[in-house]
Amino acid sequence: MKTLDGEPTLITAGADLFADAAQAQAARVVRVDWAPPMPGTEADLAAVMGDPRRAGANAEALRRVASARALLVDVVPAREALGLADRQLLHAGPPIEWARTSGPMQGALLGAAAFEGLVADPADAAAYYERGEFTLEPCHHHSAVGPMAGVLSASMWVWVLEDPQTGRRAYCSLNEGLGKVLRYGAYSPEVLDRLRWMATVLGPALQLAVRGHGPVDITAILAQMVQMGDEAHNRNRAGTLMLLRELGPDLVEAGLPSADVAAVLRFVGGNDHFFLNLAMPACKLALDGARGIAGSTMVVAMARNGTDFGIQVAGTGDDWFTGPAQVPDGLYLGDYGPEDANPDIGDSAITETIGLGGFAMAAAPAIVRFVGGTVSDALANTRRMYEITLGEHPAFAVPVLDFRGTPLGIDVTKVVRTAILPQINTGMAGKIAGTGQVGAGLVTPPAEAFGTALRALAARVPR
Amino acid sequence: MKTLDGEPTLITAGADLFADAAQAQAARVVRVDWAPPMPGTEADLAAVMGDPRRAGANAEALRRVASARALLVDVVPAREALGLADRQLLHAGPPIEWARTSGPMQGALLGAAAFEGLVADPADAAAYYERGEFTLEPCHHHSAVGPMAGVLSASMWVWVLEDPQTGRRAYCSLNEGLGKVLRYGAYSPEVLDRLRWMATVLGPALQLAVRGHGPVDITAILAQMVQMGDEAHNRNRAGTLMLLRELGPDLVEAGLPSADVAAVLRFVGGNDHFFLNLAMPACKLALDGARGIAGSTMVVAMARNGTDFGIQVAGTGDDWFTGPAQVPDGLYLGDYGPEDANPDIGDSAITETIGLGGFAMAAAPAIVRFVGGTVSDALANTRRMYEITLGEHPAFAVPVLDFRGTPLGIDVTKVVRTAILPQINTGMAGKIAGTGQVGAGLVTPPAEAFGTALRALAARVPR
Repeated sequence: MKTLDGEPTLITAGADLFADAAQAQAARVVRVDWAPPMPGTEADLAAVMGDPRRAGANAEALRRVASARALLVDVVPAREALGLADRQLLHAGPPIEWARTSGPMQGALLGAAAFEGLVADPADAAAYYERGEFTLEPCHHHSAVGPMAGVLSASMWVWVLEDPQTGRRAYCSLNEGLGKVLRYGAYSPEVLDRLRWMATVLGPALQLAVRGHGPVDITAILAQMVQMGDEAHNRNRAGTLMLLRELGPDLVEAGLPSADVAAVLRFVGGNDHFFLNLAMPACKLALDGARGIAGSTMVVAMARNGTDFGIQVAGTGDDWFTGPAQVPDGLYLGDYGPEDANPDIGDSAITETIGLGGFAMAAAPAIVRFVGGTVSDALANTRRMYEITLGEHPAFAVPVLDFRGTPLGIDVTKVVRTAILPQINTGMAGKIAGTGQVGAGLVTPPAEAFGTALRALAARVPR
Repeated sequence: MKTLDGEPTLITAGADLFADAAQAQAARVVRVDWAPPMPGTEADLAAVMGDPRRAGANAEALRRVASARALLVDVVPAREALGLADRQLLHAGPPIEWARTSGPMQGALLGAAAFEGLVADPADAAAYYERGEFTLEPCHHHSAVGPMAGVLSASMWVWVLEDPQTGRRAYCSLNEGLGKVLRYGAYSPEVLDRLRWMATVLGPALQLAVRGHGPVDITAILAQMVQMGDEAHNRNRAGTLMLLRELGPDLVEAGLPSADVAAVLRFVGGNDHFFLNLAMPACKLALDGARGIAGSTMVVAMARNGTDFGIQVAGTGDDWFTGPAQVPDGLYLGDYGPEDANPDIGDSAITETIGLGGFAMAAAPAIVRFVGGTVSDALANTRRMYEITLGEHPAFAVPVLDFRGTPLGIDVTKVVRTAILPQINTGMAGKIAGTGQVGAGLVTPPAEAFGTALRALAARVPR
């Protein structure tokens, strides 16, 4: 038997006890950052990891998402784009019945009903929702996404994005600004007045501008944003400015009254989040291309309705895997505090699903002033997300990481195996209907959504 | 005699020989990064460092620069703003006579004479300059700055910036874009046509917009730019976009033909460098506040005329200290190479003088794709500049450096003592008149300018 003929170097994985003891004896120790998989997932993990379709299916999913291109092609009312009926309302997140909706979701739904003229007073709408006379469906079931409550009704105008390679489309409402706005659950007269102005002035003006301009390459703008300190979820400053630059001249040439043109420019220019509602459908459009790839373990949607957090996976069709939405940890506006915040809400986590938002915070360190944490946390968040993703986005290069692409394609197996959860940054809505925004912060999905998704993937592995 | 009773820690400065030897014997060594001062400066350095006025004077200089605020208040022809006569031409850098001017400076001066109608053909102007019939003076002598050749003539329109606390003003021409433009030494008919459009459409339109808007806070925009990947010398993307956002609505309401408004928006929006000509006078305005503070060793201007590099210092009045301008090292457009590049030219190093540009590259890592180098170089450049500056800018916070302020106030004594030269990034002009831009890169001032400035400071120390 041969004994060691030199000083050993130890490589340790997992529990630190042994590494600490060895290091205390002056041994050289290389620690591998390792944690056991989520409890109870071992058998499913083995089944899915052994699925011979997996590698090819994930490569195809990644290829489709990375090569997608989102062009802004039109702005029209949701009635026209999505065929929405008067009493049909869409909302953020996975499906939910009225009785289980949170305060901000209820506030937005009440306000939308009044905006549509279905009721005179928003409060009167509750009874209709309870009786099921106003129908509720997820935006995601209609190729749409909505930030926060994400409520979309027939008379609201939507951005229309199209991938020229597939003809696929995705839709999103126009952004109202911050503070007391419908998507944060506010529904006071000022909120409804703003929505009416958006439907009568803003939407038609943007339609003329977009039709005059021709398709606007939203994917290219997203790529530029990542060079300019935006992560496209809670920082959309550069994106909003680039949209103004693109559409401004055509808006001027649209033949509208100068006062309306100036009002539109001021409204868009006064809201650094305006571009979010273009970033989101661009992400959805790319990810929808990977839906329904048998054997793929890539997440194609993460969305929250304020009560449940749900994910959808390429290899499991349109099934939702859910768990309770968590309350974000972050910074509060004015006198608000953690007790005022509703659990996580909105379809905007579609940005993280494609590797922007919380996944791209290294590109947007200034965001820590909005969502909390330190700059080194922001850099660490992005680096950690490479652990649970399948690749890197070829167009979204992070300068400070030497132009490395953003982490792309969340892999359910990697999340379960490492117990590292996707990092989301988000606005926080007041939990009482009517409040509006109370802050912004950081949050993760419930781990169980990934466990149940893995189980569903395992059940589909051919035997 | 007491001997060491524990393991020693060595602190070494300068030559690494001793440190290396000690480290090889397993001693703990802390290396202090030290280099001897520039040769021959020791006596002057001792005199200036011993000047009892120095600390107070530099504190006052720093306070004035840091507290300055630049508001854009008007846009008018240079004739009106600066009282320029028809045959009076301003240029970048320290004073220079025609015979010593470089190719791009000559090209710009020939073009400007034709633009002013002083000659029919640009080539005819050379004889007038040779005979001194067209007079040449630095922009800096007229409270103005000009990028690259920096040529300013009576009919060109200028931005008017004002510090509301002092009433002081600074001026700069409007930016023409990149490529074949006057400031890079091109003077073809298309260059002159563009200048005429700028004087007849762009300038008057911007005047109406600025007067309709009221003062625009350029300092606040600069602070935002540093959060958005601009360093305000060779990246001014976010700044240009924010200017469009500010002025767009007022431009729309100015009562101009829609076609002109749209053309102005497209011209500004199509030139990511447009804001440079606002950043530069904002920097000059702040630094001019520190001129003439006896005993201060702070640099208040760095400027190049394409032949000489000159600096001015707070404690030495309006004297220039010069040395030969260096050829930048960087990236070239198309087929151009190092042999095509003119030595360093332009007043734009005023951005570095206040700690932006090459000093703020950590805030703008994407710039390495334009000027060359790596992202870690960009971060290292900013960190190194703290070694030669007096403080940090209170408003220009670099997110990736945990919101540390940009390095502010170049100290002649620190430059001479450390031999660390200010880091400048810059466009490169073709050395043959008429060429235009050939690339962009990195450059430093000639060391001797700091040595002669130090000598002048030493001569003024009270005995």
